[in-house]
Amino acid sequence: MAEKKDNEIIQHHVSEEMEKKRSKTRDTHSFLQSDTFSEKEEHSSTQSSHRLLAYSDALISITSTIMILPVAHTKIEPDQEMQKSLQQLLTTKIAVYLMTFLIVTVAWAAHIRLFQVIDRIDDFLALLNLACMMLITFLPYTFSLMATFPEVPLGIMLFCACAIVIGLIQAVIVIYGFGHPYLLNDRIQRSENQTFYKHHILKIILKIPAFCFLAGIFSFIFFQLSYVLLAMVIFLPYITQSLKWCGNKLVGCQEGLPESTLLYSYHPCEPLSKERVEAFTDGVYAIVAMLLILDICEDNVPNRNEVKERYRGSLIAALSEFGPKFLAYFGSFVTVGLLWFVHHSLFLHITKATRFMGLLNTFSLACIGGIPLAYQLTHKFTENLHNELKAIQISCVIIFFAGIFQLAIWVTTLFNERETLHPYVRYGGRDHAFMFAKLALYPCVTLITFFLTCILSKFSAQIFHVMQVVVPFAFLALRVLVSIALALLRLVFCPAKPMHHALEEDESRLPFNDELS
Amino acid sequence: MAEKKDNEIIQHHVSEEMEKKRSKTRDTHSFLQSDTFSEKEEHSSTQSSHRLLAYSDALISITSTIMILPVAHTKIEPDQEMQKSLQQLLTTKIAVYLMTFLIVTVAWAAHIRLFQVIDRIDDFLALLNLACMMLITFLPYTFSLMATFPEVPLGIMLFCACAIVIGLIQAVIVIYGFGHPYLLNDRIQRSENQTFYKHHILKIILKIPAFCFLAGIFSFIFFQLSYVLLAMVIFLPYITQSLKWCGNKLVGCQEGLPESTLLYSYHPCEPLSKERVEAFTDGVYAIVAMLLILDICEDNVPNRNEVKERYRGSLIAALSEFGPKFLAYFGSFVTVGLLWFVHHSLFLHITKATRFMGLLNTFSLACIGGIPLAYQLTHKFTENLHNELKAIQISCVIIFFAGIFQLAIWVTTLFNERETLHPYVRYGGRDHAFMFAKLALYPCVTLITFFLTCILSKFSAQIFHVMQVVVPFAFLALRVLVSIALALLRLVFCPAKPMHHALEEDESRLPFNDELS
Repeated sequence: MAEKKDNEIIQHHVSEEMEKKRSKTRDTHSFLQSDTFSEKEEHSSTQSSHRLLAYSDALISITSTIMILPVAHTKIEPDQEMQKSLQQLLTTKIAVYLMTFLIVTVAWAAHIRLFQVIDRIDDFLALLNLACMMLITFLPYTFSLMATFPEVPLGIMLFCACAIVIGLIQAVIVIYGFGHPYLLNDRIQRSENQTFYKHHILKIILKIPAFCFLAGIFSFIFFQLSYVLLAMVIFLPYITQSLKWCGNKLVGCQEGLPESTLLYSYHPCEPLSKERVEAFTDGVYAIVAMLLILDICEDNVPNRNEVKERYRGSLIAALSEFGPKFLAYFGSFVTVGLLWFVHHSLFLHITKATRFMGLLNTFSLACIGGIPLAYQLTHKFTENLHNELKAIQISCVIIFFAGIFQLAIWVTTLFNERETLHPYVRYGGRDHAFMFAKLALYPCVTLITFFLTCILSKFSAQIFHVMQVVVPFAFLALRVLVSIALALLRLVFCPAKPMHHALEEDESRLPFNDELS
Repeated sequence: MAEKKDNEIIQHHVSEEMEKKRSKTRDTHSFLQSDTFSEKEEHSSTQSSHRLLAYSDALISITSTIMILPVAHTKIEPDQEMQKSLQQLLTTKIAVYLMTFLIVTVAWAAHIRLFQVIDRIDDFLALLNLACMMLITFLPYTFSLMATFPEVPLGIMLFCACAIVIGLIQAVIVIYGFGHPYLLNDRIQRSENQTFYKHHILKIILKIPAFCFLAGIFSFIFFQLSYVLLAMVIFLPYITQSLKWCGNKLVGCQEGLPESTLLYSYHPCEPLSKERVEAFTDGVYAIVAMLLILDICEDNVPNRNEVKERYRGSLIAALSEFGPKFLAYFGSFVTVGLLWFVHHSLFLHITKATRFMGLLNTFSLACIGGIPLAYQLTHKFTENLHNELKAIQISCVIIFFAGIFQLAIWVTTLFNERETLHPYVRYGGRDHAFMFAKLALYPCVTLITFFLTCILSKFSAQIFHVMQVVVPFAFLALRVLVSIALALLRLVFCPAKPMHHALEEDESRLPFNDELS
């Protein structure tokens, strides 16, 4: 039964892919009546820019998660009241981490955008891109300078200098690309309005260096203004576009914009390369999963002399002191791994990524960056009951939000499911309930754990550990659990109706149901 | 001119890819006369195991480079004689780093091998794979325990326990895969001898847990023997196969083995997934490029109070103390980035990766892991002339070997260029000289720098800095430089001959020329 089902999934995916490809080829044909372009399109990513982009994604994903390290390495004395030290943490280091994450992902989105225009690369572009990467990886440092010394112009100056040079390099890449049109995206390459595109793109790219230049100048005169300017560069396009989008959703007009006008807009439906979103996400998950082993390998190998003197030569006694750290490592690895697994399942069924989904994904990833830290906290305060409770609740909140943002991506795709979802998991489809259960598992479990620890605060550690152990098995048995739940629902609500009606019954509880039907 | 050439390259690659795909489809047809399989084969990697493998590669590449951190963070007092501290470093931490790198890449190779048999995944396999990854990421820690306490059985026990569980999980994956044949590689899926394959693969996979079990038992009785057993597991298959391969090369018989018998052998020509070699390499390069910024972001943001007291509020004065660190960061980022660029160019022209190439690549990557450390050393000892010279020479040696191993990959492909190289860069082809120049640039430059610093030891820092600045521009101008060099050679040696003869003239200096013609 399960075998047959899986076989069907594969077959289904295959036919989907084939269909997509065929329609793509058809489009191209109708556009130009020539074979060469469609052939190029099929293979350009594999032989030219693919690996450069994968390497860039790896670099940017590491850069964006690096600033969690200073947070994790903040020494908190176990005797001290955790409330106080937490507040200190929350105000500075966590803020730096979140802002860095946001700014670096903005730079990453700009990079995606750029290489959606430039489709193929040569040596010159590869070297320019490496120079650009070097400056992006330096941004976190300038940002932490700004956070530590907000009133000294040097931090802003450095940040602005980096941003200006990054913008200029991107402009050079665009100019070079339009000078060698075979490097461009096929749509632009075929377009009559190449000069229009060029000016449009350059205008948007050079806006950022111009603003940063102004901000750099104002940092000497009136530094508050320069922060306002920088915030404007980053947030203004998003805010205006989001307001527009919400307005459109409410009024309901202007549904499908043609894709070409979406290029280099800040529209929430602007397509993002799904492949690159996946690569970036994988990078962040991988780094986050390894953050604790990084620490463990460096700090927790006991010293030979120390073992002789303090533990009378017993290595096991020395290691048992590090025991909680190992537990924290395995716990956070499992949680991060399972959240990756959910993300993987989700993106397997998504056919097209948009800017808004990218933003939700960024929020989810920013939460995931905090998981190792939270786990480290939960295992640090086993002596003090009150602090332990707080730490466990913080873990639950972080995991809850990481899961909720993943669920939000799924909800977003459902709004426009004909374009963004495989038919197999569309509303009412057979795997819809299963996918929903996968996405809802972590938010539900952490919510239950949170409230249980509130009520039974004495057993908070035990509840948390049971949760850690149960969740992987829940994922293993999820398909069975979902079928049982559906069967029960069928029995309770509509014993006469056939199976797929029961499924719809189950889904009708979702809040976005009216929107869909 | 350049434009036309690049266009040709792209066109060439496109036709290559098309040809490959067509021949693949043809193969499948002749085998089974059915469409469904070829369709499956085309799309299986994109919708099923592709992302799982990318994530695994990211995790393993981070794991393998982690152990360089304890090396980099070893405190060396600038006053102390560097010779001594270096010897201490060389004996323990660097050995741990290199052995970890080797062992983790062995685990990685086993993982590649496994997922060349298993072509598609389902949820159960994804979760099993995550469990396997968790244990692999824990290996470096067990290994550093073994290195610090070689005579205590606990380290060996932990290592063996991890290895046994990893082996058992892999066996479960294989059994599950053969139980659900649609998950398997198409060749095995179509084969009559599925049971033979299953037993062959299980026998090889379970060999390692069996040996580790023995080693674990002997760790209590006679621990030296358990190290011998572990070394046998890792090295014996390679040594025997390498000897066989060398013998075959010398005698010249038994050239082309059929690919199916190469599955799960340790033959140097056993195919390795090129995509995964690239993904792993990208991961290592990305982590290595970021190692220094990791340190800088954490440690080199000056303290508010310290700036007030020690530098009288001047942030620039405080930062200028960290200046050498920033230089080291940019220097190592540029070097690692350019070596990545060379690797990228090389693998763009390689059509098939083998186990032997993977091994050379591993050696190259292991050297690259040392680059940030070397750069950090060169900028640490600016006060002491003798130490500075040593540090610069170590940097040169590391970069030299990293480049030489890349060159060795290229030489290996030339031995069998019809199978492993794009026709464009084959011996005598137009881009052959250019590719060779790219690969030879770093080894040549570092060799020259090394000898210059030996002679002019007083100016070693200046020479090194000039090298750092010149190399990126050399890469930018390389195509022009190569054409000039070829034109000069043509003028000197054979003024009458046409261009492509001159190219051959140039290449005839290569040592493997006899082999090729």
